[in-house]
Formats: sequence, C-alpha cells, structure tokens
Amino acid sequence: MSVDGFIAGPAVTPDQPLGQGGERLHDWLFVNTTTDDRRVVAELLETSGAVILGSWTYAVAIETVWEYSSPFLFPAFVLCREGPVVETEGFTFVTGGIGNALAEARNAAMGKNVWVMGGAHTTQQFLRAGLLDELHIHIAPLLLARGTRLFEDFGRNQIDLRKLKVVTTPGATHVYYEVINQSNPEPM
Amino acid sequence: MSVDGFIAGPAVTPDQPLGQGGERLHDWLFVNTTTDDRRVVAELLETSGAVILGSWTYAVAIETVWEYSSPFLFPAFVLCREGPVVETEGFTFVTGGIGNALAEARNAAMGKNVWVMGGAHTTQQFLRAGLLDELHIHIAPLLLARGTRLFEDFGRNQIDLRKLKVVTTPGATHVYYEVINQSNPEPM
Repeated sequence: MSVDGFIAGPAVTPDQPLGQGGERLHDWLFVNTTTDDRRVVAELLETSGAVILGSWTYAVAIETVWEYSSPFLFPAFVLCREGPVVETEGFTFVTGGIGNALAEARNAAMGKNVWVMGGAHTTQQFLRAGLLDELHIHIAPLLLARGTRLFEDFGRNQIDLRKLKVVTTPGATHVYYEVINQSNPEPM
Repeated sequence: MSVDGFIAGPAVTPDQPLGQGGERLHDWLFVNTTTDDRRVVAELLETSGAVILGSWTYAVAIETVWEYSSPFLFPAFVLCREGPVVETEGFTFVTGGIGNALAEARNAAMGKNVWVMGGAHTTQQFLRAGLLDELHIHIAPLLLARGTRLFEDFGRNQIDLRKLKVVTTPGATHVYYEVINQSNPEPM
C-alpha cells in the first residue's frame, strides 16, 4: 500500500498489473529488497495453507505475471460469480461468496493460515463480514495520489486493531495488526 | 492518522475536535503513552520554530482544547481569507495563501523548522505546491471507516518519499519520510 492508501495506480491491465506508477509499491520485493523483506515473504508462505483472491486479481495476474501457472505451493481459491470454462492448475474457482470460499480454503489449509491476498474489493468484503483475524500491511514510501484504495467501502463501523509487530526496511514498513472488535459485522 | 487514512472521524465540532470515534487517534498522546511517544512530541517541539495551521483547525481547537491560549512556545500562523476582529495571543492570522504564511513563519522560526500542523486541507495545499521537505505520520491502530482523509485531492502527481525512521509504540507507528520529487508542483 502507498502511504496514501492505494494498492494500485490508475489503469490496471494485465500488462500493467499494479496500474500507472504502481510497480513502485513492490520495489521492496523486486528492486531494493533486503533480508528482512524476504523474511516477511518467506514467513507468509510458510504459515499459509491456502490463499483466497478475487477474480479481478486473478484475471490481471494470470497471463503476464504468473504465465498460466500457480505461483503458490498451496491451493488457491478464486472468488467468482460463475466458474470458468477451463481452470488453471492450482486454482479452484469458488462461487457462492466469501463464506463458501473461506470454508473450502480452511479445509484445504489443514490447520495452517488462510491468506486473503486481495484485491481491495475482496479484502473489503472480508473486513465487512468480520472474517479477518489479522491485517498485514506493507507500506511503500510513496504517495500515489490516484488508483485503487485498499480501505474504502468496508462498512460504517470503526474497527479496533492491536499492533503485533513492525518490520521496517528502506522499501517498506511492514505492519502486522490483530483485528480486535468485529462485534457487529454487517451481513455478507 | 488511522490505518485507513483518516485524521478525524465524521462530525468534527469544538466539543468533539477529532470527530466521532476519532479521539482514539490520539490515545498514544493521552491514554497509553510511552516514553518513545513523548520523545516524538518533545523532538517536534524542540526542533520547530514556528507552526502553521488552517483556520478550521484553529476554530475547532481554540475554545475547548486550547482554552483561548496558545499551547505553543513559538509563533503560530493561522491561514485565513480575512483576519479576525480579535486575535488570540500567540496566533497570527495570515491572508494571501500558503506562500505568505510560509514566508512569515520562516522568518519567525529563526532557522528552526516550520511545522505544518494541518488540518488535511492545509497539508494538501502544501503538498500540491511542493513545499514540504518531510512528512511525519503517526499511524494509530484502528480503521475509522469514515471522516477526514489526510491524503486526498493533493494533485494528480505521484510523490516519491524516502523513509528516514520509524518509531513504533503500542499506540502509534511514527513514520518519518523525506519528500523526494516535487519536480512538477502545480500552481498554488
């Protein structure tokens, strides 16, 4: 996420999956990465047993970024309204909303964490339903000014967090929060 | 700022200067403050020689929060369209925009820093004009969902930052950035 809250710049396409100017959001992964940055990713991959992503994230990444092959060592579940004609190996398309996807992912994760990768709309749905235990946010040092906001339209209720840890590198401030009050989630 | 980018909740009034639910943004100052939090404030006050604030911030804080007396040990400049009939001691009202205010504040600061306190609209004007050297952001552990966003409407250009330091406490993640590129500021 940029300091001003965007997880992609404007004009997201398969050739520009992070939008205009948004590739700098991932410099901590690909350009000025450090041991601590790599440890953040390694820990995520080691503790996750399944991942959930939105159909737009899948559509934007599958061709150019992932080259039609799952980059994950664990099952990936794609939220969608209707299943695709042809599935890509490693991805399972789930209809019936986030509740269904979470049930399937939990089952596949065999006791490990379920990672809700995004995008923004998917994260917002999970937040609104009170289904996230933790938020892990990676804040890159830039103001994007325009694009896709991570936190928008996730309900009208304040959500309290408890900071678990911060890992700071030149390319990112990795902040880990526990979600405290989700006492009054809105209906899915 | 909340994790989702708000510096006040909705319905800001003199009796509720941080808006509905927004007082939690300042818990690191008043509720669960630590030595590190207090050092953040002490450093700000020691290095500043003048402060600039918007007229809305002044109007909201002067009565209930500041009780008609400047809380600052250095001159404070309030941006406004027309000067008030009666000035409060310690505050100087500046017409003619942020350029004028900055010139007056720089002169008063005697070589020390000029602190642009806010609110959001004032910060945005300075960002848009390319007049900020550093951003110091204090991120409180909550999602406010609604209110006044700090970063909104500050121009269409991406702004690169360089992280200077992070101070992390239970109540806040204090992140200090240098503003790198302001090569193409828009006119004031």
